[in-house]
Amino acid sequence: VSPTVSTHVVACHNVLGGVIDSFDNLIEYSPEWFRRFGVQVKHSTEVTAVDAGRRFVTMVSLANGEEETIDYDNLVIATGSIPKVPPIPGITRHDGSLIERVFTLRTIEDALGIARAIDSANHCLIIGAGLIGLETAEALRSRMGSAIGQVSLVDTEPHVLATMVDPDMARVLEDSVASHGVDFLPSTTVTQIQSEVQCHVKCRSARGEESSHSADLIVVAVGCNPDIALGKMAGCLIGPTGGIVVDGCCRTSISGVYAAGDCTEYRDFVTGHPLLVGLGSVAVRQGRVAGINAVGGVEQVAEGLLNSRTTRLFGLEVAAVGPTQCELQERGINPIVGKVTSSTRPAYFPGGKRITVKLLVHPDDARLIGAQVVGDEGVHLRADVLATAILSSMKVGRFLQLETCYAPSVAPTLDCVTLAAEAAYTRWTRDRRDKERTSD
Amino acid sequence: VSPTVSTHVVACHNVLGGVIDSFDNLIEYSPEWFRRFGVQVKHSTEVTAVDAGRRFVTMVSLANGEEETIDYDNLVIATGSIPKVPPIPGITRHDGSLIERVFTLRTIEDALGIARAIDSANHCLIIGAGLIGLETAEALRSRMGSAIGQVSLVDTEPHVLATMVDPDMARVLEDSVASHGVDFLPSTTVTQIQSEVQCHVKCRSARGEESSHSADLIVVAVGCNPDIALGKMAGCLIGPTGGIVVDGCCRTSISGVYAAGDCTEYRDFVTGHPLLVGLGSVAVRQGRVAGINAVGGVEQVAEGLLNSRTTRLFGLEVAAVGPTQCELQERGINPIVGKVTSSTRPAYFPGGKRITVKLLVHPDDARLIGAQVVGDEGVHLRADVLATAILSSMKVGRFLQLETCYAPSVAPTLDCVTLAAEAAYTRWTRDRRDKERTSD
Repeated sequence: VSPTVSTHVVACHNVLGGVIDSFDNLIEYSPEWFRRFGVQVKHSTEVTAVDAGRRFVTMVSLANGEEETIDYDNLVIATGSIPKVPPIPGITRHDGSLIERVFTLRTIEDALGIARAIDSANHCLIIGAGLIGLETAEALRSRMGSAIGQVSLVDTEPHVLATMVDPDMARVLEDSVASHGVDFLPSTTVTQIQSEVQCHVKCRSARGEESSHSADLIVVAVGCNPDIALGKMAGCLIGPTGGIVVDGCCRTSISGVYAAGDCTEYRDFVTGHPLLVGLGSVAVRQGRVAGINAVGGVEQVAEGLLNSRTTRLFGLEVAAVGPTQCELQERGINPIVGKVTSSTRPAYFPGGKRITVKLLVHPDDARLIGAQVVGDEGVHLRADVLATAILSSMKVGRFLQLETCYAPSVAPTLDCVTLAAEAAYTRWTRDRRDKERTSD
Repeated sequence: VSPTVSTHVVACHNVLGGVIDSFDNLIEYSPEWFRRFGVQVKHSTEVTAVDAGRRFVTMVSLANGEEETIDYDNLVIATGSIPKVPPIPGITRHDGSLIERVFTLRTIEDALGIARAIDSANHCLIIGAGLIGLETAEALRSRMGSAIGQVSLVDTEPHVLATMVDPDMARVLEDSVASHGVDFLPSTTVTQIQSEVQCHVKCRSARGEESSHSADLIVVAVGCNPDIALGKMAGCLIGPTGGIVVDGCCRTSISGVYAAGDCTEYRDFVTGHPLLVGLGSVAVRQGRVAGINAVGGVEQVAEGLLNSRTTRLFGLEVAAVGPTQCELQERGINPIVGKVTSSTRPAYFPGGKRITVKLLVHPDDARLIGAQVVGDEGVHLRADVLATAILSSMKVGRFLQLETCYAPSVAPTLDCVTLAAEAAYTRWTRDRRDKERTSD
């Protein structure tokens, strides 16, 4: 029982930026489409109670208020997540709703609100420089035209995309952000928002410097919380990250209740730590597994989340797999790093593009445990190569034995991925030799 | 001791086609470059004898005829290969050299000859529709201008790129070849060449139909034979394919003699059958391993050749890894096939390109054993993903657990590789169930 028809929230900024013509295009599957495959969709319907013991749900139509109960054999909860709103004084009204000119960007309704506000906006402020924050900045910049107005990004972290890439890899992207007319204020906390004719925003930097900004439009993009209301009703175990705990079969702690997507918590493939699911790629894979298992099949997702993630921003492509170096270090793992900048084609062939690959290798066994790629082309597919390697517990030395495709018009004999692996392998071998010498 | 400085033979057609300005650009490493790293290069020098027992080689300078002997601890033979010339009546002079207007394309000298001949050529015929044949056809077409003259391709095989892709995958490419003004004559043998003012060429199709063609320029591109003269002198074992047999450390059968590149024979990763090395990507990996081992290090290439191969032709990219379906069937393996055509981006996002993925799966254990990809973009890197999987002996079902990178502007949630894997996995599971039922 899904309360709404699947929409592509992540593509809302693409409509705002004018890349996609209409929000209607984002609805991939209509209720009719589902009906054709024998799936009944009850839209505009809210589930108000779950009885996991007697296996039924109670729901109410938002159109006419009629209540209905439905028995189930197995229930799949796929309630997604709700944008976080940071506790900034002034950001909400008394009823908890966002004040005028302040938006989150999760649903098509959010995007329509922003679309209405933007035409009269001259100063836009985005709180949060993660994936959605940056993608929104690009869309607003593109919609406003590059010469007009101001788009600013504020983040408490010292660099953009902090959960995706390390500071050294973010730097290339920050140059691109700046050159496209977006101001980035790193290590900055918004301390107050006042709404009058415009919004007045007060900020404080990590060094304690105060600043004031005006904004006609504020987009809050500081991540999401899993929507676990139904999971709680069903009695499902909620994990330390706040998501519904699921196993590889998408089973919750309650018999007959499965969960999939952003409302769930699973574990990191590399570190084993609990991790919130927050990617569409994971959600569809969990959805498939939950659905198959709920009707009696047997399928599993991988042992943990690789978190393969990518975006295209201001002409650059960025992708990452597994934890960042910073995150690994927080978990007590000090990875060996192999980092190389080279070209996507041989030096003598015209049209090669600059690309940087950073590989993270486990110091104990030389397993590949993380990767980040930034460049002009061929970025996300190189990350897919590295995701395949991480999923196979491949040692970095094995990369030197991997034949990558070569043709001068397409790729060099030794791809940047191979070169980065060689750098990491050489370092790992040397470290190992040094350790053995010390222990002698 | 390398008789010539490394050149990029595969890129010669790129200079002919005008993509690369000058043949000089193809020489990546000069004798000076090698000297800086302490490597002495004796160019214009021919090795005339190898004494592998007493470990010395005899060489003669082609410039002044002086003879010299050099002792060695370990010898690396990297003599490459020589273009095959089919035994067509009339193709050679009495001394065995090619008649006027007929060329192979392996060295810069070959390409210079073609370049001189092409300006007065109106009818060009290429014998062999493999990688080099097709790349040459594109280069000639581009150099002649699309409206002028005629470029024809003849092959004894019924489709292009017969050692790279199966007939079903070649078809897309053949459409593109035709639409770019190149005639392809499949299943056709050249039976005679006569040189007068023009060349007169007689052909016979598989059905016995005879035809005559005129050509101002003929390029022979029917593959290469390993150059094993030095290997034989050293007493190295020559394999059934005609190459110097090497192991994973690039050791030949003779102590102290290593070999690398196109002159060697190694084994197929999937079938274990002897296979000639014929790719630059393999050659550089073998060269690294041979070099390291020859000076006392320990390195190995993979257990066999994946033969990851790619090209970009007439606006299409093609790539393949491992044996084709046809080749596997010849070896007694009847693979399960998963084949999908989809888009490189979600349906609702503009700019997605058509791409076809064909996966070959071992019927016994569902291991991925081969892959072919054809499309407008992102082809060779998807083949690299599949090469990584084959090298890891990944089962095709594991692909459904692989998180590929997703962002609407970059890639769909379920990539064509995932969809093809799902198709193969579904078919494999059904076949397995049928077999179990039959055996009950």
